[in-house]
Amino acid sequence: MRFQAIEMSVHNFNSGPSILPQPVLEQAAKAIHDFNGTGLSILEIGHRTSHFQSVLDSAIGSVKRLMQLDDQYEVLFLHGGATTQFMQVPMNLLDQGETAAYCDNGIWGNKAYKEAALFGNAVLASSSADRSHTYIPKDLNIPANTKYLHITTNNTVEGTQWHNYPNVEIPLIGDMSSDIFSREVDFKKFSLIYAGAQKNMGAAGVNMLVIKKDILGKIQRKIPTIMSYQKHIEAGSLMNTPPVFAVYVSMLTLQWIEQEGGLAEMGKRSQERADLLYNTIDSLPLFQAKVAKEDRSQMNTVFFIEDESLQNLFLDQCKQAGFVGVKGYRTVGGIRVSMYNALPMSSVKAMTDLMQDFAKQHG
Amino acid sequence: MRFQAIEMSVHNFNSGPSILPQPVLEQAAKAIHDFNGTGLSILEIGHRTSHFQSVLDSAIGSVKRLMQLDDQYEVLFLHGGATTQFMQVPMNLLDQGETAAYCDNGIWGNKAYKEAALFGNAVLASSSADRSHTYIPKDLNIPANTKYLHITTNNTVEGTQWHNYPNVEIPLIGDMSSDIFSREVDFKKFSLIYAGAQKNMGAAGVNMLVIKKDILGKIQRKIPTIMSYQKHIEAGSLMNTPPVFAVYVSMLTLQWIEQEGGLAEMGKRSQERADLLYNTIDSLPLFQAKVAKEDRSQMNTVFFIEDESLQNLFLDQCKQAGFVGVKGYRTVGGIRVSMYNALPMSSVKAMTDLMQDFAKQHG
Repeated sequence: MRFQAIEMSVHNFNSGPSILPQPVLEQAAKAIHDFNGTGLSILEIGHRTSHFQSVLDSAIGSVKRLMQLDDQYEVLFLHGGATTQFMQVPMNLLDQGETAAYCDNGIWGNKAYKEAALFGNAVLASSSADRSHTYIPKDLNIPANTKYLHITTNNTVEGTQWHNYPNVEIPLIGDMSSDIFSREVDFKKFSLIYAGAQKNMGAAGVNMLVIKKDILGKIQRKIPTIMSYQKHIEAGSLMNTPPVFAVYVSMLTLQWIEQEGGLAEMGKRSQERADLLYNTIDSLPLFQAKVAKEDRSQMNTVFFIEDESLQNLFLDQCKQAGFVGVKGYRTVGGIRVSMYNALPMSSVKAMTDLMQDFAKQHG
Repeated sequence: MRFQAIEMSVHNFNSGPSILPQPVLEQAAKAIHDFNGTGLSILEIGHRTSHFQSVLDSAIGSVKRLMQLDDQYEVLFLHGGATTQFMQVPMNLLDQGETAAYCDNGIWGNKAYKEAALFGNAVLASSSADRSHTYIPKDLNIPANTKYLHITTNNTVEGTQWHNYPNVEIPLIGDMSSDIFSREVDFKKFSLIYAGAQKNMGAAGVNMLVIKKDILGKIQRKIPTIMSYQKHIEAGSLMNTPPVFAVYVSMLTLQWIEQEGGLAEMGKRSQERADLLYNTIDSLPLFQAKVAKEDRSQMNTVFFIEDESLQNLFLDQCKQAGFVGVKGYRTVGGIRVSMYNALPMSSVKAMTDLMQDFAKQHG
């Protein structure tokens, strides 16, 4: 059982799907047996019922409160992950012959850029490929008449994060999959935000979108019904059977965030976790973080031990200690520690304790 | 709790999401707490782990065994529902200027037809719109050089079902969302089968696809990465984070089907449920089923009481009796009783008992 396992020190540093709050898991398991006293499982209820409508309304309400959005914005919960949005964003916003600018600061932003090229003229506003995406360029090259600028607010694989969003006159679009709701930011800087839920916001299988309505209706392309933001807005996220359970888990996770104190509290915790881990890295010469200090991610910390056999030994010891998900992404290597909203400080402490011990023995 | 609720006679006739087997729900709830002794919830495990790979492999294995597929076929589990496939099928298989034929036998098949028109020349091979989709035309009009024929094997809304699939020389494509795995059929007649999982095969949020590989690679269009069947096959359904939990529930449901005796047993049960309900309708003049007898669906039975106030009274009594999901679809009206794999005969019996009583009082 999980509870015993936690006593046995399972620490979940997965990059996504990742750790969720314990009360969310308990409530979700309960709803599999019986959803709100209906005598039915959450997996068995109709999506066009007041039962599910109240789930959807509650999730949307939480998003609007947490982001402090006004009526210019619509919130959608749709099938798919962020990768679906790599296509869906330009399909809805970029006509053939029009230009969109992308920041290539990591593997996911680069994929988004490549998909946009199928729909229009995609250009790079910046790229940090010259230094293996270990920093975020602040000088952006945006041609005249660019339709929108796309950034990835946190780069899960490389461990970088935008700490000050760019100021641009054109619509700003953010893939916030891996740092959404981890701190207070000015969401209203964006005209479109999307996030796969499986990090800070729930389980895999649903995309949350925030859309400023004034960006829609400005292209000529005929959009397949299921891909049209406008039609999803008109249908209130109920054009087809939604991923009911995934939306429900998002609702629970969003409620948990609000109950814990909202984004101010999440931001405080993110900072504390990140401070402890980065300070430990900086204090131990054995470990190197290659990311530019000002661009360090509070969500995903990527670091290395130069001696590869020592690094493998460290990863082995992590495994023995019950640390899950700490091997770096296959294209980057090294060690990656993901610290999402639900990760307790005790897990970060367990990691830094092991690092201290390891450095004493091998430093 | 569900168990008490069942004693209180909740009968789930939902058209989808719909009733699931009790052992599947129990196992799913357990996995939310702890997945296979990992100390992690199924919602928290990484998708690129042996844990999830074994879930995916098991689900695919069950599909291949149940359908008796050889290596010419690939099985995928993808984000989205059948509505996504309305677009994805022609995007992958139909070039601009090419022709695809669709059978318009209901609301969903008609939607599929309309989406295809965005990608090529979509024509109707048949339509039963002349009689409100209450039958399935067997004479098909398929032009020369048609790329594929698309049918909806069961029409959830109208209550019709193909009992003998058409014999055609071109690739046959089936939307089997609402009758998949309900009986033994010759799946190898199809070059592509898709099904949203939320009826006979699990929870909402995942699409199962069976693709005969020889239909791929025959168009010029550049396909967005996340929409490409070929790329999903190459990535083994792991191009991006899959809807982990929905795949897991599908795996459990497929295992349950196999353990219960496979499609032969499912077919026997489908027949028994349908016989009891249709025989009751036919024996009671108060109730009318408008669907052509030879095309009656074993999954969704649509029937009416001519006097609308009596019909509303019947629906009220259904509600009081704990019958869920029996109101007809908004465009069709009447009464709809959905009887998927997990529905016990006792629920059908409870329905027909009420019908008998009601007919005695009001017939």
